[in-house]
Parts: sequence; C-alpha cells; structure tokens
Amino acid sequence: MIVNGEHYKTVWYDPDTNIVYMIDQTKLPFSFEIVELKNYRETAHAIKTMIVRGAGAIGAAAGYAMAQAFVENDEVAFVQKAKEVISGTRPTAVNLFYAVDKVFNAGRISVSEAVKASFEVAEEDEKNSKLIGEFGNEVIKKGDRILTHCNAGWLAFVDYGTALSPVYTAAEDGKNPFVFVDETRPRSQGARLTAWELFHAGIDHRIIADNAAAFYMNKGDIDMVIVGADRIAANGDVANKIGTLGRAIIASHFGIPFYVAAPSSTFDNDCVSGAAIPIEERSEDELLYHTGPTRDGIMTEIRLASPGSKGLNPAFDVTPASLITGIITEKGIFKPGELQEKLRTT
Amino acid sequence: MIVNGEHYKTVWYDPDTNIVYMIDQTKLPFSFEIVELKNYRETAHAIKTMIVRGAGAIGAAAGYAMAQAFVENDEVAFVQKAKEVISGTRPTAVNLFYAVDKVFNAGRISVSEAVKASFEVAEEDEKNSKLIGEFGNEVIKKGDRILTHCNAGWLAFVDYGTALSPVYTAAEDGKNPFVFVDETRPRSQGARLTAWELFHAGIDHRIIADNAAAFYMNKGDIDMVIVGADRIAANGDVANKIGTLGRAIIASHFGIPFYVAAPSSTFDNDCVSGAAIPIEERSEDELLYHTGPTRDGIMTEIRLASPGSKGLNPAFDVTPASLITGIITEKGIFKPGELQEKLRTT
Repeated sequence: MIVNGEHYKTVWYDPDTNIVYMIDQTKLPFSFEIVELKNYRETAHAIKTMIVRGAGAIGAAAGYAMAQAFVENDEVAFVQKAKEVISGTRPTAVNLFYAVDKVFNAGRISVSEAVKASFEVAEEDEKNSKLIGEFGNEVIKKGDRILTHCNAGWLAFVDYGTALSPVYTAAEDGKNPFVFVDETRPRSQGARLTAWELFHAGIDHRIIADNAAAFYMNKGDIDMVIVGADRIAANGDVANKIGTLGRAIIASHFGIPFYVAAPSSTFDNDCVSGAAIPIEERSEDELLYHTGPTRDGIMTEIRLASPGSKGLNPAFDVTPASLITGIITEKGIFKPGELQEKLRTT
Repeated sequence: MIVNGEHYKTVWYDPDTNIVYMIDQTKLPFSFEIVELKNYRETAHAIKTMIVRGAGAIGAAAGYAMAQAFVENDEVAFVQKAKEVISGTRPTAVNLFYAVDKVFNAGRISVSEAVKASFEVAEEDEKNSKLIGEFGNEVIKKGDRILTHCNAGWLAFVDYGTALSPVYTAAEDGKNPFVFVDETRPRSQGARLTAWELFHAGIDHRIIADNAAAFYMNKGDIDMVIVGADRIAANGDVANKIGTLGRAIIASHFGIPFYVAAPSSTFDNDCVSGAAIPIEERSEDELLYHTGPTRDGIMTEIRLASPGSKGLNPAFDVTPASLITGIITEKGIFKPGELQEKLRTT
C-alpha cells in the first residue's frame, strides 16, 4: 500500500535487528506513526493495545512476535512463556493462534525455521488478500461505484485487505472505481480508516452517513456492495460489523449485488449457522462519546448524546446467506451455499 | 410536556407584556434555557437562527411574532414590514406562511383579533398533535417497543409532537412503551432531542447507532416503527430525514409495521409523487465534524473523519407509499393510497 507516496505494509519484521515495525493504528487517521518493537513483549503489548488490529494483521504480528522470542532466547522455558503471553493478547482472534502455533512448531527445529515460518504467515496473508483482489476484480466493471462498510482494507491485513482489495486491483487495472464509504458508527472505521486508505491510494471516494446508503442505492448510484467478514458459518451466514445486515437487506430490495470478501480462514465449518455466532455487546460509551481533533489539532473527547440517556451497542450482526450474492475468497468467488463444499475440495 | 418536573410548551406568548418565550433548541440537550423575545424582530431573529425549529413550532412562533408586531404598532406600513421580515426568516417553511397570513388578516379587524388568531394557530397545532397521539395510541399494545428516527417530538411542534405523540399517549394510558432511539446521523437529532424528550417524560428508551436498527428488528425486539414526515406527496410517498427509507425497507423485510405520523398540513396534493420532491444536499461539514461538550462541559467541535477525504450529505430521502403501513393524522390513520381521498373528504 501507498502512504504519502511510499510503499508500506501494516506490520513487518527485520530479523537482523529483531525489530518488528507497525503502523500505529490508534493514531490514524490524524497522525501517521511507525512504532518499533524491540522484543516479543513489546510486540505482544502492541497487539493487546490495538496498535495493530484486523484479523490478518494480528496474525502476522503474532507470528513475528513468536519469531522475536526465538531470536531473543530459544530455551524451551522462554519460548513457552512467550507463546502464552502472545496468545493471551487477543483471546478471540483465531488467526493469532494459528500463527503462534505455526512459528512455535517451526522453532522446535531451529531459530531460523521460526523466523522463516513467521514470514510465511505474513506472506500467506498477503498472497490471499491479493488473490481476493484478483477474483473480486472480475465482477467490477469500468467506472463501477462500490459501497463498503467498516474497514476491511489493507490496515486489517498485511497488505491489500479483503473488501477493498478488489477495489485496489480494479484501480490498477484502469477501471477507475468510485467508493461510497459508510461512516460506520459508532467507531467510524469507514470515515477514519477506509477513507484514509483510499485517500492515500488516490481512489475517488466520498464518506456518507450510514443513513445515506439507501438513498444512493435508490438513486441508482451504487453498482455493488463489498464488505468483509469476521466469521462465516457453514451455511454461508456472515457475521460482520453492525450495519452490514441492513445494507444487505437494502441492496437486496434494490437488486444490487452484495459481496462478502474474506480469506477461507474466516470460514468456520463447526459453526452451523449465523444463529450460533455470539454477538459482542460493547460499551455504550462508544456510541455516546467520540474522540477527534479540534480545529487546533488537540485530540478531545466530546459527548454526542443527551445527558442521562443510555445506549445499546451491539458490535456485529449476522447477514443470512440468502442475501449474499457471492463470497470472494482466495480460491474463487462462491455462492454462500456452496462454500462448505468448495473450501473442502479446492 | 414535562421538563425537570414542570409543564412547558416549545413556544408561548404573553400578550399583556407582548413577550414571546421559547425553549432555546440550539442549547439542547446540554443546557435548558428559555429565551424572552420582546418584539417581533427578536422573535423573527430567533426563528431564523433556529432557536425554534420544526414545522409546527415555527408556525406558532411566526404567528406570535406577527401578533407582537400588531401590539407594538398597528399602522399599515409597520405591520406590512413585519410580515415581510417574519416571512423571510425560513423561506421554505409552509406552516410559517400560513400562520403569518392568518394573523395578518385577523389584524386588519383589530389588534385583539390578531392576538386571538395567533393563539388559534398554536392551539390548532397542539390539538392536531394531541389527536395524532390518540389515533396512534390505538395501534400500540401494552409493552410495545417502538423504533423512531430523528426528532418528531414536542420540540418540533408546540406540544406532543407527531411520531412521539402516540408514545406519550400510550405512556399516559399505562402501556409502558419502550423506545429505540435512532441516533440519526449526521445531526444526531435522535440521540440529542428525542432522547432528551423521553428522558424528561420518564419513558424508558435506549439510543442506538443507526446501524443497529436492523439487528434489533431481526432479533424480534422492535414491534413497530413510527417516524415523522417533512412532506407527503399525493400518492402517499413520504419525504423525511435521511435514513427513513432504509428503516422502511428493513421493517418491510421483517414484516414490522411502519407508521408515519404527521398533521394533514404536511400533505401536498400538488406534489404527484416522491420523485417530484427535491432533496436538499447539505454541507459535508455536518458529517465530517461534530460539536458536543467535553467531560468538563466545554462545547467543542472535533473532526470525526479522516483529513483529506470529502463527504456527501443528503438531508432527506423519500419512502415509497408501498412500504408504509399507515399514516397517522389528526383525522385518523389512513393507508398512503387513501390519503388523498380522506384528507379531501373528512
């Protein structure tokens, strides 16, 4: 990805100095800062404090942290402790456990195998994201106007991303896509992270209130919707950021294609349907307050809502398979109903 | 309406002192202040600067301002000039012209007739809102959970309001309604004005992100939707705050009744359908910035969105008649398709 005209990844690692580098996502979009993490504990702390966020990026960072531990000290007790510390940072992140296990097992052979395995985790994430972009690009026509929700861009992965990867590929392909960016209340990941990515990538886009999506769909201004996924059930139901379900219903009403883009690792065969996915209820403060810079650039928190009133803040919703046109994976685009078979056989 | 345990109206007038009083809506919900307007120019200025807002409340304020002018000086040149000044404050507000004309014409007979006419304007608004509440209450069952969007409460009228009037009546009727309050981005009228009204009325409610409405409808937690209207076309299409269309589509998807509450004066027989209603595009700054108090109570504006990115901010959308269960008016509840006939004959 390009930031201020230079190539970046979300997280990267220099084994010679044993330093992990990350874009500090807690500072975005108002400040672009790279943090240097000199040992596995610093990297684990960065994962815990959400300096890095997003399934793929967390996985890569966790793999690098495990490799850092081996480079620091490859005694069994030390790396075993490191595995525990890293695994405890974000206990619900499936990619994190996969990465830590892979690097830990490779490290039993040698330190250099651990380092190599950590690069493989990140490269696999990057390669899958790139393939999602190529498959997704096949359904994008020149000049298409695409609505996206939340941030499933390169910041959530090592590079390219999922929902935005087809947009980036289409742009490289000369198709001049235009992106409607759902603000994505309450945490504004659309207005903040997705808009920031697209601005730096030089892709034409506009932020809209979540409320305005139906207006533009009705006007005929939106050719397709592409969103990411936090978890895909065996029957093709998709858990994703709150508001995704509403977009899918509205897109279906207007006959607009609704795509989900996600690596096959998001597919959870043990989860029968969306009804089995627990929905996280987060603090009402995310809804009732918001932080941002004043005109003078001073980061400040304000109250948005009337004093005395309370809020409800479900973080995710489940979109049923019946409302999804296709799921774009690194193995191709599949109907939700055929995902189980395809991801097993291809 | 009740604020801090006392009865209030949005705007009222004391002809003995010739003072118009208003709740300063620019200060709500963070500060409750009453402004005193000593002559028609002060009242006109208050209308222009949105100290009073909402169709019904603006109409009443304009009528009182016209009465003030007659009490100040009933010479033709003076009241003629006042009529121009008051009419120029909010040039698209239909109720304003109706009120100013009515009081101006009554004032040709005598000053006391002008004063009397100004009270009639406000009383008619209040009476219509109350009737909307009574008709709307008929479709509310005990314990119903009602979703509303934006603010169509008593603050937008002299008292009771439209979308919230059935809720207030149901509460008086012992039905204990619960209200899901759409935040209503970008201007947060739900989180600010509707939540403030319900809090003071002692009605149980929670603010939700606009994105969460589909989640709660899917969960079976919402029994009906009631919204207001800015304009109703002859075929029953309804223009209202941005986001209304999306709620109507989602409610229809889940088979949840979707009601519009509005006085018959909102019905525009000259407007054939929603396609003929122009949609106001407002400043992107309403979306990209937000004002609110810090924890120390200092009103501050922050940027919400990524620097460099632009926004689109349509203020209204049009909900087609086909998605509306019923329109609650002061004359009864009608299907959108029968509105033209009923409002002509009843």
